Formats: sequence, structure tokens, C-alpha cells
Amino acid sequence: MLTRSATQQLDADDPLAGFRDRFTGDGPGGTWDDGPGRRLYLDGNSLGRLPRATPAALARVVEQEWGRGLVGSWAQWVSQAGRVGDQLAAGVLGARPGEVLVGDSTSVNLYKLLRAGVDARPGRDVLVTCADEFPTDRYLVAGVARERGLQVREVAADIDTGLDPAVLAGALDERVAVVVLSLVAYRSGALLDLAAVTAAARAHGALVLWDLSHAVGSVEVDLSAADLAVGCTYKHLNGGPGAPAFLYVRRELQDSLRQPLQGWFGQRDQFDMGPEYVPADGLDRFAVGTPPVLATAAVEVGAGITAEAGIAAVAAKGRALTDVLVQLLDERVPQVRLASPRDARARGAHVVVEHPQAWQLTQALLDRGVVPDFRTPDRVRFGPAPLYTRFVDLWDAVDRLVDVLATGAHLGYPAERSRVT
Amino acid sequence: MLTRSATQQLDADDPLAGFRDRFTGDGPGGTWDDGPGRRLYLDGNSLGRLPRATPAALARVVEQEWGRGLVGSWAQWVSQAGRVGDQLAAGVLGARPGEVLVGDSTSVNLYKLLRAGVDARPGRDVLVTCADEFPTDRYLVAGVARERGLQVREVAADIDTGLDPAVLAGALDERVAVVVLSLVAYRSGALLDLAAVTAAARAHGALVLWDLSHAVGSVEVDLSAADLAVGCTYKHLNGGPGAPAFLYVRRELQDSLRQPLQGWFGQRDQFDMGPEYVPADGLDRFAVGTPPVLATAAVEVGAGITAEAGIAAVAAKGRALTDVLVQLLDERVPQVRLASPRDARARGAHVVVEHPQAWQLTQALLDRGVVPDFRTPDRVRFGPAPLYTRFVDLWDAVDRLVDVLATGAHLGYPAERSRVT
Repeated sequence: MLTRSATQQLDADDPLAGFRDRFTGDGPGGTWDDGPGRRLYLDGNSLGRLPRATPAALARVVEQEWGRGLVGSWAQWVSQAGRVGDQLAAGVLGARPGEVLVGDSTSVNLYKLLRAGVDARPGRDVLVTCADEFPTDRYLVAGVARERGLQVREVAADIDTGLDPAVLAGALDERVAVVVLSLVAYRSGALLDLAAVTAAARAHGALVLWDLSHAVGSVEVDLSAADLAVGCTYKHLNGGPGAPAFLYVRRELQDSLRQPLQGWFGQRDQFDMGPEYVPADGLDRFAVGTPPVLATAAVEVGAGITAEAGIAAVAAKGRALTDVLVQLLDERVPQVRLASPRDARARGAHVVVEHPQAWQLTQALLDRGVVPDFRTPDRVRFGPAPLYTRFVDLWDAVDRLVDVLATGAHLGYPAERSRVT
Repeated sequence: MLTRSATQQLDADDPLAGFRDRFTGDGPGGTWDDGPGRRLYLDGNSLGRLPRATPAALARVVEQEWGRGLVGSWAQWVSQAGRVGDQLAAGVLGARPGEVLVGDSTSVNLYKLLRAGVDARPGRDVLVTCADEFPTDRYLVAGVARERGLQVREVAADIDTGLDPAVLAGALDERVAVVVLSLVAYRSGALLDLAAVTAAARAHGALVLWDLSHAVGSVEVDLSAADLAVGCTYKHLNGGPGAPAFLYVRRELQDSLRQPLQGWFGQRDQFDMGPEYVPADGLDRFAVGTPPVLATAAVEVGAGITAEAGIAAVAAKGRALTDVLVQLLDERVPQVRLASPRDARARGAHVVVEHPQAWQLTQALLDRGVVPDFRTPDRVRFGPAPLYTRFVDLWDAVDRLVDVLATGAHLGYPAERSRVT
């Protein structure tokens, strides 16, 4: 049995322990409350915590660059989306300079690259995705298929262990234009092999458009093996609620792709304001409207912390944290069933369990200061954040879960779900 | 001749004079520097000044709602885009609750509503816009026309006085699906009659999609006469660089329209995460991805000031400011030619002049603390902001312009343009 003091020893040995102080805790003045009644935030994969440096960085951009610099600050701002993109590329995505652009939402970026990918594969009439794919991805695939007269092959995936590469292989052929997949599944946390899947699709001439939302900042991503990707920055990159997303387009593909939202920031000679839209060379052609300057400043801070910690170390701690969580659940909570891959190398930094009263269990945990999230149909998702979740936090969270189940406290909550995030 | 003291008297009589102190000036601590060498910022129609209340409002959202509330704050955030939209609707747009949504960029919103409008007019094969329309609008119209196999009728417009309604009328017929027009022209400032143009298009069964970017917060807009509109919030609404834009869809049309970016925030039962995309009822179907919470908080502050001042008073001062500017230019700067409508009722809150060395003139003014912007091909644009530009600021700006032209200082600048905003 893993003891509480054993988890404390893991924290003492954790090379990333110092990074916790880069984030705002729940104590006075944003310090960390380490008392027994403290909040145990295990939802960093939904909304990451606030970095301590973010308020001052935002204030600088707001008060100095906007308030004092006014329109003259566009001299810097105009390159911000690419600069922060390059920071992501080098620090957490394994991409090259000029391959990652920050801006718009993940959904808008998915639409742009999906449409660009379809146009780059004329004559092909199939889009492939996975039945367990995140809703916005499935909906966008369905929408683009409808408007372009394409078929969708929705490949079956195990809700617990994710997509089987052999099953995917069976869905690939010369009719497939684009494959849309999450590298880390939003519910189970199942992790795919980016290079192998991309290579399998390429062998049939298809493009893979990766959604990295649950992967970026939690597992090692090597986009040098990828063609197209998008992802969000408000989870493990700690960029803030609704922070601008990013897109990646492999350098060699950029000038052969064209996205349909022909806005002025994607135009070659933007301030000539000429009569005709000519896509900018390279990555800029995937920009659309005026970029979100203030919000991108927060992304820069958040992503910078992960880059500084080193994504290899962050990913290793993510595996260690979820291994400990799985062990604690195995040993102490037989009433729930692990609904994530058991092998840490096969999952991202979150773990899901199945329980018939998952909704009520989530409410009971929230009222006891443990913050997971509910996921349909009957899952409780725990997302420890490698940069600020301690091993002992997992022990204490599981302890509260044990108590809820032992006392039946969750049965006092209505079974009917309310709107959730 | 209008004297400096006469403009000072206009300021003394200005009922909106007190609103200047709501904004950050160029003096110590953001106070207003009223000295003779002060910056004269006449580019509020490109990027509005920072409201004094914005830093604290942003800090509250960042530190309290994000830092402390964490994922639980989505209980409020989920309605933010509609709440700030309703504020815009009531305060500055003449729209009803549930008709205005904040989020995405103006360009992305244009794409969504243009595509929705085209689909709502099946069998029609023409889009109408104006040859002098803002680039992003022209580019998006061209892009949608190309992908949908439509024709574009680009109606000629006078570069100084804007689109002649009679010329537009000649381009309207039963083949027209959607007409895209700016209510206030970005270069000349020419103001169209929203109700009359919308009615003329409706008479042929066409929809008008208004771009209100240069109109919102500077002229009275009555969307009760409109079907579709978009606009930006970083100009006269002072929402900050790259602030989220807005879209308007007339209530009676909402459920019959469908936009193509099928993201999870537009889905009816979002957190059921069901297999199929079913557009939400009403306005929410025009949302796409996770909304930009931090940046929208800044929009709320900025737009609130205009609403509090009252758009009728703001628009009246806009006309008065530009009238004074035109008079000063007429009387003191015969070397430049007014390239905006002379009648204040026919223009927004900015004025453009033509000069063969417009680029060099702009650079010389910038170096002398006057901030206009250059516009192709040979225009200098002055955008006084009714909420914080004083009449005496215009006198002093024109005085510096007189000096530049008298000394030929502008001729010392290279004629070759650099990248500008």
C-alpha cells in the first residue's frame, strides 16, 4: 500500500517541485494553502492555474504597450503571433521556427486547416475521424464533409484505451483526404503514436490533422513528424480562460495550402490594401483577422514556464503522477473502475474512472474541495498538472474519495445533471 | 477664422468633456499632459485609448475569477459573450437582447455570417460589395464567392464621398444573395443610410451584412432596421488591441440561419457531447470555440463608457469635432484637399485629406507628436475620438501641420513606405 508519507517522499525527490511557486495558490495573497482542508485542484487539463508572472505581464502590455504606446505598438504586436508560436514550437512542440502561429480558437483553426487539407487532396472524398473524438472535432469534420460533399469514416475506438492503430489502418485508403485525431483522448487520456499514425496516413497520400489540446504541455510532442496540427493553450500551458489557440503547418506544405477565411492578416502585402487577396508566403497565410494581443501575452507567460521546466521532465512527472493515482485507486477505491490506459506510456497526464454515479460523485468531491470533472456518460476525470500538483495532493484527494464512497455522501446529490464545463 | 481660444470655448461648453478623465493620458501616472509639446492622438479609429478602469477590471478577472475561481468561474463566463453582447446591443447598436454576440475577430465573424447568408438564399449567385470596401471584407467576399461558385458585383464608389445609393440600386436584383458594406467607409469616413440600403436590398430579397467597424461607438447605429452585422471593438469602443469582435443577427432570422464553423460552443446541448452537431437555438449557434474571457472583460469596460455617455451625444460630438477639423483645414491648410464628405451628417467621426506626399506628411506629423494614419494611395486620416479628443487638440494638430508644410519638413522623409498599420 502506498502511504501518505511515501507520496511526501516523492514530492521531496521531485526535480520540478520548485515550479509550484510559479503559480497562484489558494492561500492568502496567492500563496499555497497546504492545510488539510485545502482545495485539491485536479482540473488543470480543463483550465490551468494562473502563473504568478501573468498579472504583471498583462499589466505591462495593457498599461505600457496599449496605454502609452498606443497604435505605435503595432510595430511589436504584428510579430507577436509568430513570436509566441516560435516559443511554442521550440519549447513544447518539437517544431521549427515559422511553423506555429498563435491566434483564433482551436475550433476556428481546425476549420481552417481541415478545409486547407481537403483542398490539397482533390478527388479524395473521405474524411476520417474517431467515434470517441472530442465533440468540436467531430462536429467540424461533419460540417466540412457536408459542405464539401465528402463522406466521414468514423473509426470505432475503445472508450477506455482509445483508438487501435490496426483499426485505423483498416480505414485508410486512397479515398482519404484528411484524418482528424486527438493525440491524447479528452476522456480516457489514451495517447496515440503521432509519427506512426502520420506515416500510415502518408502511405495512402492522406494528411493527418492533429488536435493537440490535451497533449500540449503534458506529453512530449514531436511535430517534426507531423503535417498539420492545432491545439489549445488554456489547459496545460496555463494561458488563461479562452486563451488563443495555435496552429502548426509543416514548413514544406505551407505554400501549397490555402485556407478559406481570406482576412487581411493573411494577405501578402497587407497594408497595400490592394484589390485582390494574395495569400502571404509561409505561415502568415493561415492568419485571418487582427490578432488578440492582450490574451496572447498571457499565453507567452504560461507556455514559457513549461518550456523552462522542459517538456521531457514535465511529461515524466505526468506519467509518475498518474501512475501514483492509478495505484492509489487500485489499492483504496475498488468501487471505481479505471477507464484509462493502465500503461503510463500509453496515456497523457490525466486519468478517468468509471462509476455508475459519476455525476453525483463529482458533485460530492467538489463540495469536499477536490476538483475533477465529470465526463459523459459515467466518468470522473482527474487531471493532475505536473507543474503544480504534488503527489501528496493525490493521496489526499483519493482519501476524500474513499470517504465519500464509504459514507455514501454522493447519494445525497441529485442524479440529474446541470450544465457543466 | 476659427481661433485657438474659440476651440477652447467649445471644450468649455462640451457636455462630454468629463469623459476624458475616464481614459489614460500621456502624462505621469496616466494623467493628461496638456502642455504645448503633448501628443495629439488622432487615431482612436484605429486603436482607442486605454480606459482607466480597464487594468483593474482585467486584474479582477485574472486574479479573482481565473486565479481563485479557476474552472468554477465558467458558471459566469459561459454567459459573458452574450452579456457583453447585450450591453452593446442596448448601449450602442439599437439592437434587442439576444441579438449581439461578442467573440472571434471581425474577419471570422464576417465569414460566418456571409456563409450563413449565402445558404439562406439558395439559387442566388451574386454577392455585392463596394470597390472601396475595407480589404478584409473584399477578400472574404471574393473567397466565399470562389468557394461557392458565385459572382461578385463590385459596385463603384467615390473614394471621397463613398457609395452612391443610386449606383448600388442599379446592382440589386433577384440574383443577389448578400450585400456586404461598411456603414462608415474606412478611408473617407462616408456614412451610408443603414435603413434605406437594407430596405432596398430586402426589396430584392437580398440580405445586407453590415460591417460596423468604423461606425460603432462613433455614429448612431439602429440595428432594428438591419438583418446581419459584424464589427470591431478596438476602435471607438476602446476594447484593446485585437479585442474580440461582435456579430449581430436579427432575432427573427436566427433559427433559419446556419454558419459553417460547427464548434462545440454553437452546439445545442454542449456538455452532452453528443454524436451529432445540432445548432443551438437562437444566437448561440453563431458561436464556435471557447470564448476569449480575458479580452472580453476589457471590451465590457470600454463599451460601457460609450453606453454611459450616450451614443447620441458621442455621435453629435463626433460631427462637431470633424466639422471643426474641416473648417481648420479649409482656413489654414489649402495645400491639402478634403477627401471626405463635407456634410457632417454624411460621415463618421474621421476625416481624410489628400496630399501628393501623404506618406511623408504622416511621418513628419508623427515625429511632431500628431498621430494620424496614412491610407493608400495618398491620404492622411485623422480620427478624433469624441470621448477624449478636445477641440483645442484639433487646433494644435492643424497648427503643427501648417508648420510642417510651411517648412517643407515632410520632404526630408523617404517617399518609400514601410510596413504600416
